[in-house]
Amino acid sequence: MNRASRAGLSVITTQVGPKPADFADVRTTNLAVVLRYIRGNAPCSRADIAASTGLNKATVSSLVAELIERRLVRETGLAEQRIGRPATLLVLDGAPYAAVGVAVDADHLTVVATDLAGERLLTWRRAFPGADTSPGKAVATIAALARRATARLDGEGRQTLGLTIAVPGLIDPTGIVRHAPSLGWRDVDLADLLQRTMRRTPFQISVENDANVAALAEHRYGAHSVANLVHLAGAGRIGAGIVADGRLLRGGLGFAGELSHIMIDPHGEVCHCGRRGCLEMVAGVPALLRRLSPEEFSQTPQGAMDLQPEVEDLARRAKAGEPAVVAELETAGRALGYAVSVLVNLVDPEVVTLGCHFATLSEWLLPAAIVELAERTSPGAPGGQAAGSPGFRLSASRLGYDATAIGAAARVLDTVDSGQVQTLQAG
Amino acid sequence: MNRASRAGLSVITTQVGPKPADFADVRTTNLAVVLRYIRGNAPCSRADIAASTGLNKATVSSLVAELIERRLVRETGLAEQRIGRPATLLVLDGAPYAAVGVAVDADHLTVVATDLAGERLLTWRRAFPGADTSPGKAVATIAALARRATARLDGEGRQTLGLTIAVPGLIDPTGIVRHAPSLGWRDVDLADLLQRTMRRTPFQISVENDANVAALAEHRYGAHSVANLVHLAGAGRIGAGIVADGRLLRGGLGFAGELSHIMIDPHGEVCHCGRRGCLEMVAGVPALLRRLSPEEFSQTPQGAMDLQPEVEDLARRAKAGEPAVVAELETAGRALGYAVSVLVNLVDPEVVTLGCHFATLSEWLLPAAIVELAERTSPGAPGGQAAGSPGFRLSASRLGYDATAIGAAARVLDTVDSGQVQTLQAG
Repeated sequence: MNRASRAGLSVITTQVGPKPADFADVRTTNLAVVLRYIRGNAPCSRADIAASTGLNKATVSSLVAELIERRLVRETGLAEQRIGRPATLLVLDGAPYAAVGVAVDADHLTVVATDLAGERLLTWRRAFPGADTSPGKAVATIAALARRATARLDGEGRQTLGLTIAVPGLIDPTGIVRHAPSLGWRDVDLADLLQRTMRRTPFQISVENDANVAALAEHRYGAHSVANLVHLAGAGRIGAGIVADGRLLRGGLGFAGELSHIMIDPHGEVCHCGRRGCLEMVAGVPALLRRLSPEEFSQTPQGAMDLQPEVEDLARRAKAGEPAVVAELETAGRALGYAVSVLVNLVDPEVVTLGCHFATLSEWLLPAAIVELAERTSPGAPGGQAAGSPGFRLSASRLGYDATAIGAAARVLDTVDSGQVQTLQAG
Repeated sequence: MNRASRAGLSVITTQVGPKPADFADVRTTNLAVVLRYIRGNAPCSRADIAASTGLNKATVSSLVAELIERRLVRETGLAEQRIGRPATLLVLDGAPYAAVGVAVDADHLTVVATDLAGERLLTWRRAFPGADTSPGKAVATIAALARRATARLDGEGRQTLGLTIAVPGLIDPTGIVRHAPSLGWRDVDLADLLQRTMRRTPFQISVENDANVAALAEHRYGAHSVANLVHLAGAGRIGAGIVADGRLLRGGLGFAGELSHIMIDPHGEVCHCGRRGCLEMVAGVPALLRRLSPEEFSQTPQGAMDLQPEVEDLARRAKAGEPAVVAELETAGRALGYAVSVLVNLVDPEVVTLGCHFATLSEWLLPAAIVELAERTSPGAPGGQAAGSPGFRLSASRLGYDATAIGAAARVLDTVDSGQVQTLQAG
């Protein structure tokens, strides 16, 4: 008899012991604990898992056996141990599974699928008339692409565990897109519409903010292994994805991470918010292009076009030493450095990464940003110790333009790791 | 036989089933789950707990019986239920227990003790030569006060479950005070020093940042029942305590929450950080007093004195309509409104409260702050929807000057609720 029922019988009058349902929940939680440990520490032995999780060895063996049976984990080779016989090492398997992420932009869609270990299975990019079409038609296009991706994965013998759609906009806690300016969407229940269009998929569909999932990608696959990280996605608006203590900080309404309207220059250019000299007007990519590439930069609504070619052209001009470009990027870098000092003082991350277009321009933005940050956080400045500490780093993301779609797929893996997918539920 | 051992036997060769240790951990976790539920929902029935926690009724009965045995919970009266016999209602008991919090300021100490339900048992305030003495002597003074408080509680038949010391400074994740400018402390391992001075207390001693625990107090006892809250403590520096998704956001180095150096006016007064027009220079209480009460405000190091009498005098002058005071407070309120807009956009809390001296001055600060915030977050401003949403509130804290000590005691209750104190460990 286990402890719980023993204690139960000793103090209560009813003779009914705890039902298996309790332990099924516990077991699901523990399966997820073991899976997370293997993800973070593979290759590792059952003894490693027991030592680190506090679960006893027999329980770990039982849980690992179940994960192997479900093909989430597999054994690989042997490792010498100092004492006793060699231990069998474990790694993630997941050959029969896939996680799918779709990044929605104003004029294109990116879909990425990964296996359980995060290895890329496919990356597609498709044109998408997001800004010029109704949400209904946009949903049909997204659904068609997602269906094609899951069908392809299905043909390779992989079951899709979940689909996350990343949208450049405000997503409330229930997953409804409250406002996506570059798509012209307001109050679109994207997950529900996709579920209907895709006809009861066997997997869960979730919707997330683009900067948030890009931060997840950086947290999971980036160069820095830390629990506190901020990723600045330099697309249209200047949005931050915040990972605090290993968890995404979404905020009360799901709207956290907006940096665009930090004041840089009270006498600067008028922002679309009505104020002057907001960060977005000084360091935002659309504003930079408007000033530096007025001919190439068409007058479409902000964010309603793919800026990548223009930004790459800007990088070429900076590399060639064009003075106006170099000067503007230095000013932008300074402004970003100040904004980073504000967020470092407020949320104290160990790493801040610049992503998307900012990563493309990082050769010119970073030096100026680091100078400004250092000035703002000199040892003599109380409260500046965080950024001035030897542990803090500001650097460019190495994940490139696919970071958002990669992060959307990573979000699916998070639901797997926390036991929220059916594959992990104890039967 | 329970599920876990059944599954274990079916797939692994060893015949050793899961050991009770596993279930002791599970039971401790579940005891904490039930205790937290009762704290949040008392008076409530066992059936309520079962329905809300997903634990089965027999397990809940067993857990409740153990909590009653440990005198953490007690039964109170009967409630009619629509179907079946009346249910016995449960409330927190905790008569034999106390949580103790000490707030350390430059010239005084505040100690608060509460019972498990957060009811105040004692509030003492003592003079403290914090800024004029060595950390060693300061520790002796704090230890003596804490000992007197726990002795008093002991005399009332209450066992102290934990002691938290709140310090105005940067506290790293291991609890070491890295820098407390108003006390002149650097790298002081306060918890360890107190443990030695107090000679192996049977309870845990922890050290926390003052703004963080004030935010905990606001989260637990304030007027707003929300999971995402920021509390601005307007003492010397302008520090924010951030509660995100019900958890304190401490940051990677434990240094989160600094707002003092947000730029308000690039041509303003020079700040001690070397920059011009920082928030602290415009809206910080020492700066306000330096400008408005130059005679009364002695030239002691910033923060090294109790400003409460001066601030209360300032409030009297504002109430009398003194134009210079009213104008300065309006300017300060505007600056605070902008800073709040930055933090609202970045971390998206549901509520921001002004505490400490800012609460005393809130009659004049709040209207200007709300105007500025509204201008910064008009419906047309992308990213401003968070603050503009009907759910968001900026208001004065009602907890007064004891908030920090109350929050320090609340921090002890958090360790109880998460099962980290011995009283909850299943034997």
